Amino acid sequence: MNRKLKMGLVGGGTGSFIGKVHHIAALIDNEIELVCGAFSSNPQVSMESGPAYKLPGNRVYARYTDMFAGEKRLPESERMDFVAIVTPNHLHFDPARLALQNGFHVVCDKPMTFNLTEAMELQHIVEQSGLQFALTHTYTGYPMVKEARQIIKSGKLGNIRKILVEYTQGWLSTLQEEAGNRQATWRSDPARAGAACTMGDIGVHAFNLAEYITGLRVTELCADLSTLVEGRRLDDDGAVLLRFNNGARGVLVDSQVCAGDENDLRIRVFGEHGGLEWRQMEPNTLVLKWLNKSAEILRTGVGNLSEEALAHIRIPAGHPEGYLEAFANIYRNFAYAIRAAQAGKHPNPVFDFPTVRDGVRGMAFIEKSVESSRSRDKWLTLK
Amino acid sequence: MNRKLKMGLVGGGTGSFIGKVHHIAALIDNEIELVCGAFSSNPQVSMESGPAYKLPGNRVYARYTDMFAGEKRLPESERMDFVAIVTPNHLHFDPARLALQNGFHVVCDKPMTFNLTEAMELQHIVEQSGLQFALTHTYTGYPMVKEARQIIKSGKLGNIRKILVEYTQGWLSTLQEEAGNRQATWRSDPARAGAACTMGDIGVHAFNLAEYITGLRVTELCADLSTLVEGRRLDDDGAVLLRFNNGARGVLVDSQVCAGDENDLRIRVFGEHGGLEWRQMEPNTLVLKWLNKSAEILRTGVGNLSEEALAHIRIPAGHPEGYLEAFANIYRNFAYAIRAAQAGKHPNPVFDFPTVRDGVRGMAFIEKSVESSRSRDKWLTLK
Amino acid sequence: MNRKLKMGLVGGGTGSFIGKVHHIAALIDNEIELVCGAFSSNPQVSMESGPAYKLPGNRVYARYTDMFAGEKRLPESERMDFVAIVTPNHLHFDPARLALQNGFHVVCDKPMTFNLTEAMELQHIVEQSGLQFALTHTYTGYPMVKEARQIIKSGKLGNIRKILVEYTQGWLSTLQEEAGNRQATWRSDPARAGAACTMGDIGVHAFNLAEYITGLRVTELCADLSTLVEGRRLDDDGAVLLRFNNGARGVLVDSQVCAGDENDLRIRVFGEHGGLEWRQMEPNTLVLKWLNKSAEILRTGVGNLSEEALAHIRIPAGHPEGYLEAFANIYRNFAYAIRAAQAGKHPNPVFDFPTVRDGVRGMAFIEKSVESSRSRDKWLTLK
Amino acid sequence: MNRKLKMGLVGGGTGSFIGKVHHIAALIDNEIELVCGAFSSNPQVSMESGPAYKLPGNRVYARYTDMFAGEKRLPESERMDFVAIVTPNHLHFDPARLALQNGFHVVCDKPMTFNLTEAMELQHIVEQSGLQFALTHTYTGYPMVKEARQIIKSGKLGNIRKILVEYTQGWLSTLQEEAGNRQATWRSDPARAGAACTMGDIGVHAFNLAEYITGLRVTELCADLSTLVEGRRLDDDGAVLLRFNNGARGVLVDSQVCAGDENDLRIRVFGEHGGLEWRQMEPNTLVLKWLNKSAEILRTGVGNLSEEALAHIRIPAGHPEGYLEAFANIYRNFAYAIRAAQAGKHPNPVFDFPTVRDGVRGMAFIEKSVESSRSRDKWLTLK
Repeated sequence: MNRKLKMGLVGGGTGSFIGKVHHIAALIDNEIELVCGAFSSNPQVSMESGPAYKLPGNRVYARYTDMFAGEKRLPESERMDFVAIVTPNHLHFDPARLALQNGFHVVCDKPMTFNLTEAMELQHIVEQSGLQFALTHTYTGYPMVKEARQIIKSGKLGNIRKILVEYTQGWLSTLQEEAGNRQATWRSDPARAGAACTMGDIGVHAFNLAEYITGLRVTELCADLSTLVEGRRLDDDGAVLLRFNNGARGVLVDSQVCAGDENDLRIRVFGEHGGLEWRQMEPNTLVLKWLNKSAEILRTGVGNLSEEALAHIRIPAGHPEGYLEAFANIYRNFAYAIRAAQAGKHPNPVFDFPTVRDGVRGMAFIEKSVESSRSRDKWLTLK
Repeated sequence: MNRKLKMGLVGGGTGSFIGKVHHIAALIDNEIELVCGAFSSNPQVSMESGPAYKLPGNRVYARYTDMFAGEKRLPESERMDFVAIVTPNHLHFDPARLALQNGFHVVCDKPMTFNLTEAMELQHIVEQSGLQFALTHTYTGYPMVKEARQIIKSGKLGNIRKILVEYTQGWLSTLQEEAGNRQATWRSDPARAGAACTMGDIGVHAFNLAEYITGLRVTELCADLSTLVEGRRLDDDGAVLLRFNNGARGVLVDSQVCAGDENDLRIRVFGEHGGLEWRQMEPNTLVLKWLNKSAEILRTGVGNLSEEALAHIRIPAGHPEGYLEAFANIYRNFAYAIRAAQAGKHPNPVFDFPTVRDGVRGMAFIEKSVESSRSRDKWLTLK
Repeated sequence: MNRKLKMGLVGGGTGSFIGKVHHIAALIDNEIELVCGAFSSNPQVSMESGPAYKLPGNRVYARYTDMFAGEKRLPESERMDFVAIVTPNHLHFDPARLALQNGFHVVCDKPMTFNLTEAMELQHIVEQSGLQFALTHTYTGYPMVKEARQIIKSGKLGNIRKILVEYTQGWLSTLQEEAGNRQATWRSDPARAGAACTMGDIGVHAFNLAEYITGLRVTELCADLSTLVEGRRLDDDGAVLLRFNNGARGVLVDSQVCAGDENDLRIRVFGEHGGLEWRQMEPNTLVLKWLNKSAEILRTGVGNLSEEALAHIRIPAGHPEGYLEAFANIYRNFAYAIRAAQAGKHPNPVFDFPTVRDGVRGMAFIEKSVESSRSRDKWLTLK
Repeated sequence: MNRKLKMGLVGGGTGSFIGKVHHIAALIDNEIELVCGAFSSNPQVSMESGPAYKLPGNRVYARYTDMFAGEKRLPESERMDFVAIVTPNHLHFDPARLALQNGFHVVCDKPMTFNLTEAMELQHIVEQSGLQFALTHTYTGYPMVKEARQIIKSGKLGNIRKILVEYTQGWLSTLQEEAGNRQATWRSDPARAGAACTMGDIGVHAFNLAEYITGLRVTELCADLSTLVEGRRLDDDGAVLLRFNNGARGVLVDSQVCAGDENDLRIRVFGEHGGLEWRQMEPNTLVLKWLNKSAEILRTGVGNLSEEALAHIRIPAGHPEGYLEAFANIYRNFAYAIRAAQAGKHPNPVFDFPTVRDGVRGMAFIEKSVESSRSRDKWLTLK
């Protein structure tokens, strides 16, 4: 286990937010090193972005096609092992496909693709390739999310009845896309974001979190997506009534026009015997509520947590870990899966991470929400 | 202002929860005294309930009809001034009607009536009578709810875009109505509760709070009411997508099967410039969030609150007032309105309380939610 | 149990804060009615204050001496049963003494007297009289304070090791006594407040709470009292190192110059196996922490609380009760004790309230803190 | 700025907690790489610890003396630039001294040395050397701690009057040192920890934080340190009354026997106009309280924070950063200072970190607290 895995980056050029996050997340656990990048669809920007990552010039590529070709020519001991794709949505599918076809494992940002068709094709390619594919639904990397999933799996809460999941932000409360905000510009552009802005950017995280924690699947939905800031071209707000495969009811709220909200992903799940509550902005706390008994405050590092939670904690109780560590958990688990594959072993299910299947599921949800929002029929089926 | 107003009670017999609450709320401000009661539809229970209220035997009546007749015969200086009706829903309309027709002001528990038809008729009777009518939507009595309303009215948050209101409890997570729980029994019985259980019991509070705080009106809705505990005869859970008359979007969640939840009424309202958040379980705090500025924690008694909030606070900052004081605010304001009427004056709008119009609105919402939940059409209009 | 007890008030004239609080607290549970008062040491103010309490003119007295005499002449069925003394500190002893000597039970505000000598004499008088005496250490009336006491008594936390108690406010951050604030004026005046301002006003509450919850006694202390606002004549800030009779260590912080603090009384107690935490500003929550186990959130009305806590709750979980209800618990328990005495029975220990012994203990603490603060010796003994 | 700085580690062998933390903190910002280590005072353990850090065998040394010699022989482009010392207290001084004498910059864990004498000697050596020396008082690395310091510096709170700082943990509630807990064993051993256990381990962090945030200096103190777990050889609990150079009063509480507490460092500072409150367990929030105005909730990434706070944030508001990022801020700033020195420039004061002077101050505080605790005199002077 001595060699670090070698990572290449597609996207993440100057001005990018998420590229830097991926890089830190990859570094934290000393399992991965960045060795190359094609940082922008603009070749010049790509080349100029190399020094910020402290890369030698010969490993900075003008285009991702060049990078895959170039890296493939390098001796195996120097060549990148996997690529992380951190571009806008319309530029996920092609580099992912090409990387896989050239034998590189892939980490991909969410939503996985531009549309569901691409997502299904990508699933086919991944499954054919036998390579590892991780989708960065970051929030499933938090230890208390793992714990929540295990609690529900254990049956302690009984049959699940109600799921309330929300993801609200406020940063699109004004027309940022016309004020030069790059993040806003592509996210609200149908040609780059796809069918949805907010639902694709954050709603899909909430959906993923709800299915991940509960182990249930949404089977029917009724959505109301809106554009509340005049001049915006896609949705900036939404609410979806949900029905799950066990009969549970749910509501998903996503909005980027909740002025004053930061990054407020929360979930509450209620079963026959009790409920749980988790909030991303205080991620080290998981509240367990019980019918007719005192609630419990579960905390990272305190008491008898599940093996799954413990495997995703680095430091003792009371030393808060945050978003970057959750993100790092996905990278570390992905690295473990690659090593397991290299060693011809099955990966340890304790070190799980979101995969191409989560990506297909998310794209189906986004498209069905948009369809529902435009429909006069109340309930649409999500397969 | 020297004489206390004299109150009679319909309902509130042994085992009642809300009767005692009304009584305490009426006492707190030394404006009102209880002088008589017809405490139960069972005459014997009614008569036996008098001593617990420390009433003399001659002011305890077997039936409310007897009470109205008996009190009317008393000299004006002894006779009750108003009656508080704290019975199950199907027994609101008739005593309210009769009280008004006999010249008594009325305080009535919510939901106002058994159905919308009764509600509209009651509105007609109240308006004809010229008497005062208060509906105990308790939560509008909290000072920080008053403050929230004034903040939105002031325009500080800009145009309102999004409203999230929830009222969740857990006490109906099991089939309490078959375990001898009186509160559960009538609330889940269509013959006594009306078209809805949870929506009528708590959902309507959430609806009232949303319209009260924002000053907006729901114009369209799409509801999913469910019965999640097997064997129950009415809804115990619901969610409603809302559209408001200014274009704002909203979601209302009501549930009595959120196991482990106590009495969790919360509201969040977002406008162009910021948002506010209030939670009944910590009622003395109102969080004001701003786009690109630090949030503020408004607290009862601290700093420059509105005249409307200040008029509903009794003790200095940091000495928590709670549910009984909010309830008492409704009683006190109702008393002030009666005195103003007696003095031939207009009531001071600072001392507001929910009226028969709120009751009609609530009954319309309940019935439309039930209708929507059964409909295949997505959006129904709420007039 | 049918007749209400009759209460008289000494103090509480126009402009008083605490008089109104006592009145509300006495009313809430329908056990007590106010029948008379001598509301001020200024006879004219006293007479003018009657109407605000809705008292008939013949029961409003110019002086408390007149009141005791006048009430004694009334038939037993009309006469006041007890008097509540809500005057500044230097006017506690004499009316209390006189009331007891005239056969009236007494409720007295804290600190009990002007100095320890008076306190010990008052204890002697009370014990001789066989009458009831309640001291309004309000905070011991909260149900979760009762629960905390029972938890520690049960031994669940093991031997107690550390006690942190704080009571901080900010309202004396400026020289309020020279700005016409009546509350500030007498509290900072050595001739009316006694040896201490802040320590007598709030520090003694913190001390009482610590001994009440833990059942331990402070045996040694080391205090640093300060006057942090220039021009003030008594302490406005303090901190005291404590040692308890079982070897536990503690710290008491009291301050009225913590600008921005409202009424922030908090206590944390740690034993061998866990700790508990209570905060007056969110009084319905009691946090129980455990060594190597998840913490629990105890809430009024949820789960298996002690008989002692349950006996002090009026409404269901999630309907917050506050300061006035805690205060009312003292009045109600005091009323129960009078009735028990009248019936020749022992009072039920579940309905406890602070007595003259707590008052003596508090005065001893205040005086010893002041002495310690002036001493160069590190530890002084508190008997 | 392209080359990463090269780091060596003294300590951090198998089983160490803080070695791993230092390593992660050094990696996060891509400014530093680990190149060598002498991981244990046991040569065999040292050699066996190399692979966990993914180091080549020739850069793993049996002893730190070997490492300094070995690295010095390497070409400058390969040689380590600085060493991080993460050993027990009694093994800080000698490797630090030797590293400096061999021309390596030093990062050192706190408390800086075994005693004050060593500390003063080390200060002399550092100042003579012209090299960089960072002391890992981690908590000063949090952005909201930087913000708190700037707010006080700005004068917004007025003259500071009261400082309450606490650092409580529960993990020494049992005799861990006899249960094989390595962290407990050396911390409670006078031969390895020095004069104090808890005061040296965490109390000194609280002291440093108080002086850092307020910019004030403690001038007098009165301490009560205790050993509350039988059989322990040093203090496990303490409280200290503080007086500051501007007349402010304070209290410092430190304990490792607060059963159920995790890592609860908190500070409250009050000035004439308001106060602030920060808690390490929710580090991204800073509460600002005002006299007679609503409190504000400052959050990392929201609104107009100081340049000093903004320079220590990596990701947008609502994406929590935690302990590792605060630690990384110290490493990054230390790296910047080395680069500035290499470039012959003054370091940018925005990127500050604790230095040898903080270390001397901390050791003086520890020793004076121990002395005070044993003294019968109330106040001792801290120079």
